[in-house]
Amino acid sequence: MFKRAFIIGTGLIGGSLAIAFKKRKLVKEILGYDRSLENLNKAESLGIIDRQAELKEVNECDLVIVSVPVLSIPSVLLSVFPMLKKGAYILDVGSVKGYVVEKVENKIPPGIDYVPLHPVAGKEISGPESAEERLFEGRTVVITPIRNERWKKIEELIEAIGAVPIYMDYKLHDELFAISSHIPHILSFANVNLLREMNVNNVRFLIGTGFKDFTRIAKSNEEIWADIVIANKHYVLKAMERLFKGWSKIKKAISCSDRAKLTGLWREARLFREKLDG
Amino acid sequence: MFKRAFIIGTGLIGGSLAIAFKKRKLVKEILGYDRSLENLNKAESLGIIDRQAELKEVNECDLVIVSVPVLSIPSVLLSVFPMLKKGAYILDVGSVKGYVVEKVENKIPPGIDYVPLHPVAGKEISGPESAEERLFEGRTVVITPIRNERWKKIEELIEAIGAVPIYMDYKLHDELFAISSHIPHILSFANVNLLREMNVNNVRFLIGTGFKDFTRIAKSNEEIWADIVIANKHYVLKAMERLFKGWSKIKKAISCSDRAKLTGLWREARLFREKLDG
Repeated sequence: MFKRAFIIGTGLIGGSLAIAFKKRKLVKEILGYDRSLENLNKAESLGIIDRQAELKEVNECDLVIVSVPVLSIPSVLLSVFPMLKKGAYILDVGSVKGYVVEKVENKIPPGIDYVPLHPVAGKEISGPESAEERLFEGRTVVITPIRNERWKKIEELIEAIGAVPIYMDYKLHDELFAISSHIPHILSFANVNLLREMNVNNVRFLIGTGFKDFTRIAKSNEEIWADIVIANKHYVLKAMERLFKGWSKIKKAISCSDRAKLTGLWREARLFREKLDG
Repeated sequence: MFKRAFIIGTGLIGGSLAIAFKKRKLVKEILGYDRSLENLNKAESLGIIDRQAELKEVNECDLVIVSVPVLSIPSVLLSVFPMLKKGAYILDVGSVKGYVVEKVENKIPPGIDYVPLHPVAGKEISGPESAEERLFEGRTVVITPIRNERWKKIEELIEAIGAVPIYMDYKLHDELFAISSHIPHILSFANVNLLREMNVNNVRFLIGTGFKDFTRIAKSNEEIWADIVIANKHYVLKAMERLFKGWSKIKKAISCSDRAKLTGLWREARLFREKLDG
């Protein structure tokens, strides 16, 4: 499908895309660059990329993937745009779209297709060593298109790696993921810190599987997540506000032993959550 | 170890204890009672209990397990205490200990051993049909002893079903579980409700595994959990207060794009959480 791809940022998502492209023969040659030389060397020695390259070599590529921490995506896109050859596709895979799209949408050179993506396939681990061929299989990749252009080919690329493309307005995307992903991370980190501050002996043996699952995402890389919540601060703060209002109601209900209020609220949550499975 | 046990409340925990006792031949005969006749019939037809019994038959048992919703435990204990025969053990398995212990500790008849337990083995499903023999294997059972009595035999019983007894002061227990279990449930239900209120189409395909794990506990029975947080309201409200203070700091840090503050707080959480595994 593509002759030469350039992966900027060879971590979990960039690395996994590179492997998936290669194994399925969707791209002939894959070049890579990473700000961290250690990561870049790892990606090369693990065979994730064919070879290391300098950024200026994007001018010989027909597919460029920007998979760097989200706060850096706009500047990387803006510096790469002028170097691209006509007809090239450039994608970013950040978890926040508005922060990126609004900074670059008026600066896309003619003849270049920029397609903002969000592969919903995060893990709590990161780096090239965590990359895997099948990370995207059966997963959703959100496309938040900004112009009516040639993203059909990108839809095909997504399907070719076993994922399912879903189109969404970038603002709705950011509002949704504030609630379905960013707030959970903030809460999970916060709850772990509450427990940490208690300094209980043998706490490892006293926590149940509920707490472990609830806080698995608190093992996520804190730099990546600080970037994400800052990039999406508008919707994250809005969701925190709403959560706090609900929180106050629950506090009051507990305080008054208002069992009916609690079971009513939680029953709705349970029924909704049960439908998300399968 | 025991001739005849009586399980009051034949749901997940009571039912699983009954099965574990039988399969390991720790108890000769197991009687059962449940407020819900449907559950009781299920427990009998599944072979979890040997037969249904009336509560007054506790007078022929040397082991009584009270595994009813936590708000009902004190009244069940107080009504059963006078019927027990000398030398009998009575255990409760509620997830909150102070609420129970403080209501009954001065009313234990002489010659009776009441041992408050908390098997840390909950699941998000409930009822006799979810009971399983190996629920307690490798799990901790917290014992919050209230008098220096003959709980050694209960320690042996716990070990005989493959679990690990840990002794703890009941107040510390309740403060710890407010943070490690009750707050996570409250947050998980609340976050699911935020998502529900967004009314997004196809939301099932847009959530990642992070959200699913984070909200698995929101599939828990809301009646059981309303009881638990109300029974433990002192420590739950205290923990909510602390969480809210941390929350305000995080909100401020996000609002000011204070990356160093966020990564500092979350790094500590991540390192602590990583140590809880394995």
